[in-house]
Amino acid sequence: MASDRVWTAALVVIGDEILSGRTQDKNIAQVATWLNDQGIRLAEVRVVPDDTKRIVEAVNALRSRNDYLFTTGGIGPTHDDITVDAVASAFEVPVIVHPEARQILEDYYRDRQGGLTQARLRMARVPQGAELLRNPSSGAPGIRMGNVYILAGVPGIAASMLHALTGTLEGGQPVVSVTVGARAPESDVADLLRETEQAHPGVSIGSYPFFRDGRYGANFVIRSVDGALAEATGEDLSERLRGAGYEPIEGGL
Amino acid sequence: MASDRVWTAALVVIGDEILSGRTQDKNIAQVATWLNDQGIRLAEVRVVPDDTKRIVEAVNALRSRNDYLFTTGGIGPTHDDITVDAVASAFEVPVIVHPEARQILEDYYRDRQGGLTQARLRMARVPQGAELLRNPSSGAPGIRMGNVYILAGVPGIAASMLHALTGTLEGGQPVVSVTVGARAPESDVADLLRETEQAHPGVSIGSYPFFRDGRYGANFVIRSVDGALAEATGEDLSERLRGAGYEPIEGGL
Repeated sequence: MASDRVWTAALVVIGDEILSGRTQDKNIAQVATWLNDQGIRLAEVRVVPDDTKRIVEAVNALRSRNDYLFTTGGIGPTHDDITVDAVASAFEVPVIVHPEARQILEDYYRDRQGGLTQARLRMARVPQGAELLRNPSSGAPGIRMGNVYILAGVPGIAASMLHALTGTLEGGQPVVSVTVGARAPESDVADLLRETEQAHPGVSIGSYPFFRDGRYGANFVIRSVDGALAEATGEDLSERLRGAGYEPIEGGL
Repeated sequence: MASDRVWTAALVVIGDEILSGRTQDKNIAQVATWLNDQGIRLAEVRVVPDDTKRIVEAVNALRSRNDYLFTTGGIGPTHDDITVDAVASAFEVPVIVHPEARQILEDYYRDRQGGLTQARLRMARVPQGAELLRNPSSGAPGIRMGNVYILAGVPGIAASMLHALTGTLEGGQPVVSVTVGARAPESDVADLLRETEQAHPGVSIGSYPFFRDGRYGANFVIRSVDGALAEATGEDLSERLRGAGYEPIEGGL
């Protein structure tokens, strides 16, 4: 049985392309969803530039106060890929070429044009003491150093590294969420929401308004590690919404 | 003429819905893009939960080391909207009802069902000493407190608050980017990229690989505050790519 303790993780997204607005980040949502399935709560995210000092600062601030820290981005073969060096610096260890990673890359590039070049060999560099994370979708592996999990920045590759990690991390109970929607301006039901949350200790209710098809509406998301409690709170909230003259939509709008 | 000094901003995204993976964030990219147009560089983003202590910590860490700090989320009428209280706490001032904000809400809700309820009046609360930011798209205004700009979380409303702010913030020179793409595995051109960057002091080159239609490719993004330098570097990079046997695609793939 999963323990009652709350397990937390943080995420450091590394990349000038996110901070310039050029690239829409997709890793926050996918890491968050995957962590929740492992019973681990994403507690904080930082997006930092391709700058060693800023990466070191974020990694050291977050790895000590969370059970796990994930990073995405900056582990490719080019000069702007500095994540491995920054994590090594955060742990105050040198960077070495990992023999198994080198073997993986040798196998991967044996029949590919150019073979294992010096640039490609960069992807076998790890902080001393690190282990490899399996990368089912391309040659270069991810890296685990202590409680820090270094993933690729390309969302599809990060996803396959997460997939390979599924079930291997210790976690607690996943948070269950129940969503109820209504064509109500959230300001009309604010009191009702607060009262519902107060009536069910152990749940939190978030209110997410929208304006769609010329009408106001909102989704109310009830979260709890106790699935039955979340369900019961959802039914109570639906009842209260009906009492206020709104049709509750289970599953949300 | 814009000054040579680099102006920076940070962004705090507030919301359990982003950290749970339920909602895909859209504010990072739009705030980043808008800031760049103002000649301000987005230096760091933190995503924090709906938790006063964590919001205060992020706001205080980032407002002192950047010219501007933006927040998105948590300024609606419901119990989980705690951004105003957290920012007031960060500045160690009380929360007051802003008379002009109250007037805006009274006008906005005069002919709307329910009128100006207590819940809706929550949206007139500001940290003492704050000014309002115009919200052209719905009633509740944004808030400026010192160098902290408090925006709505709904991306469309945040966008209209940014639009109303356009041209009002002091900034420097916008970063210009020139993109060149190629059907090259980035590991094949890693040396060439580093050499190109080194040959043009004042530019940075980012490499963003992809796998599409069964083929590898990458976009190389040259960034500089000097537009002519970025263009010249793009031409040099194209020439070098051609020399290595790859067809450069201006504007990227």
